Amino acid sequence: MAESPSAKRKREAKDGENGNAESQGEGSGAGTFPLADISVRKVLRESARDKTIFLHGQVNSASGDGTDAVVILEKTPFQEENIAELLKKHTKLQLQMSNDIYSTYHLYLPPELNEIKTTVVYPATEKHLQKYLRQELCLIQETGEDYKKITLPFIESQSFSIQWVYNILEKKAEADRIIYENPDPAHGFVLIPDLKWNQKQVDDLYLIAICHCRGIKSLRDLTAEHLPLLRNISREGKEAIVKRFGIGGAQLRVYLHYQPSYFHLHVHFTALGYDAPGCTVERAHLLSDVIDHLERDSQYYQKCTLTFALRADEPLLKKFQEAGRV
Amino acid sequence: MAESPSAKRKREAKDGENGNAESQGEGSGAGTFPLADISVRKVLRESARDKTIFLHGQVNSASGDGTDAVVILEKTPFQEENIAELLKKHTKLQLQMSNDIYSTYHLYLPPELNEIKTTVVYPATEKHLQKYLRQELCLIQETGEDYKKITLPFIESQSFSIQWVYNILEKKAEADRIIYENPDPAHGFVLIPDLKWNQKQVDDLYLIAICHCRGIKSLRDLTAEHLPLLRNISREGKEAIVKRFGIGGAQLRVYLHYQPSYFHLHVHFTALGYDAPGCTVERAHLLSDVIDHLERDSQYYQKCTLTFALRADEPLLKKFQEAGRV
Repeated sequence: MAESPSAKRKREAKDGENGNAESQGEGSGAGTFPLADISVRKVLRESARDKTIFLHGQVNSASGDGTDAVVILEKTPFQEENIAELLKKHTKLQLQMSNDIYSTYHLYLPPELNEIKTTVVYPATEKHLQKYLRQELCLIQETGEDYKKITLPFIESQSFSIQWVYNILEKKAEADRIIYENPDPAHGFVLIPDLKWNQKQVDDLYLIAICHCRGIKSLRDLTAEHLPLLRNISREGKEAIVKRFGIGGAQLRVYLHYQPSYFHLHVHFTALGYDAPGCTVERAHLLSDVIDHLERDSQYYQKCTLTFALRADEPLLKKFQEAGRV
Repeated sequence: MAESPSAKRKREAKDGENGNAESQGEGSGAGTFPLADISVRKVLRESARDKTIFLHGQVNSASGDGTDAVVILEKTPFQEENIAELLKKHTKLQLQMSNDIYSTYHLYLPPELNEIKTTVVYPATEKHLQKYLRQELCLIQETGEDYKKITLPFIESQSFSIQWVYNILEKKAEADRIIYENPDPAHGFVLIPDLKWNQKQVDDLYLIAICHCRGIKSLRDLTAEHLPLLRNISREGKEAIVKRFGIGGAQLRVYLHYQPSYFHLHVHFTALGYDAPGCTVERAHLLSDVIDHLERDSQYYQKCTLTFALRADEPLLKKFQEAGRV
């Protein structure tokens, strides 16, 4: 249907407001997105490290009802091939601070040398909004007593299903993905690539060793009795990885999580050069440190205080708050 | 001495080339950095995740000899409080691809809404260039013996300058950036934003507590005698941060590095939701864990094995290799 002159004028006026938004893409419904006209309802999440922000916006219609959109903005990486041009063409360099040989500046560039990657989900549903919403974190310092009185009862009251773990151990699932196995029921384990690793490169290598022995929920259950198991995982796991992937033990980060994402003991093997999510100090515990602690004191993990972060909406956080521990 | 008209013209021409570089900082030698004039010798490292690039540049003198500089560029995080303005004032939105409800765009902003954080080390030494050059990593497990026999002699043989640390403690530099101070010479410290944090948002909050007491090189020197200092840093540091920035202790990650990047004891305070570089388990040690260990055993850090990564080109790695420890 041909566009009426008044519709055409409205569209061109809108394009002007959008700063000459251009349609150059493929796909159905390709066109402009009225970025300048959306109202920002909420910031769903932001990452200062990644330089991203996720917005819940509303596109306003003539009738006043808004249609939800998720707008994701991300600063773009620098590109080696145009770095020299970027330095020459900067528009302003403003000194912020200097101390001895160190100085910091605010640097400004022409827009075309500093674009922002933008992704839009439109129209967005409530599910999209929840998916991107970040929760505030709260650090917990769980003593040995807290574990017995708060955390353990909570874990036992939940029906966390770990059937998928048993499926792997029993070769009912993912059997062809197993890299290595020590079948000993007490001291053995299965080594398998983590689902987060697509195995297309070793930069982000990520494997999991799942112990055969059932009933070891986490670090809190470990005693000196488990040293043979832990030493097997450490030694045989590294040997299998060097054999299969050519990555030596000194290029691996080998650790447990507390709290773990499922309560059947497992150990993470990640490439040392890869800052895997969850290798931060408030969640990861090096396997070598765990072994050292247990060699000194069999009861170490029943007595010590363990620190971990909980999201604001987690029921376990509420338990800690009710017990006056947060 | 009054500036001659020709000198004035030269200076103004230079400022014009530098894009009106402005001097607004304190400190000795504060002035502009000739960013447009440097030649980029090498890209030392880049991170597409962090949107950073580290350059080895050379500032050319009239005689043709260059003086080395390290120039670090980092895209800045988005700030919630001006996101609406940013969307309205964008200069261009260019469709890249669309598929059903998903579409991607190139977005362009006015320079003042999209600055780049720039840090310069100038003049830079070979040591600086090596520090920033990305290398393969090797994990070391340093026993208490290894520290005495290999690491400590190595540290003592090096001439790492920490004059900039003393400048801060003596208020010769960055005095106006100090957030809090406990002036006690044995148990006190200065709390100051880290250079990596531009303070424009709290998502990537990053402060350092530098102890007044000189001679505590690292974790390895800590004994129960330092517990008052460590507890002061923990308690007063968190109080100062909640007062100034509204971020509570349970939203902070408070830790030491081993090995540290400079051998004068300091503690990192970072936002819990921010995956700061260097908060990984093979480098970070929670201050609360350090205090716990020292309460149990004053000699813990002289006896225990500490794990850390060294780059392939680090002389200390060679020492460990020569001693047959790697």
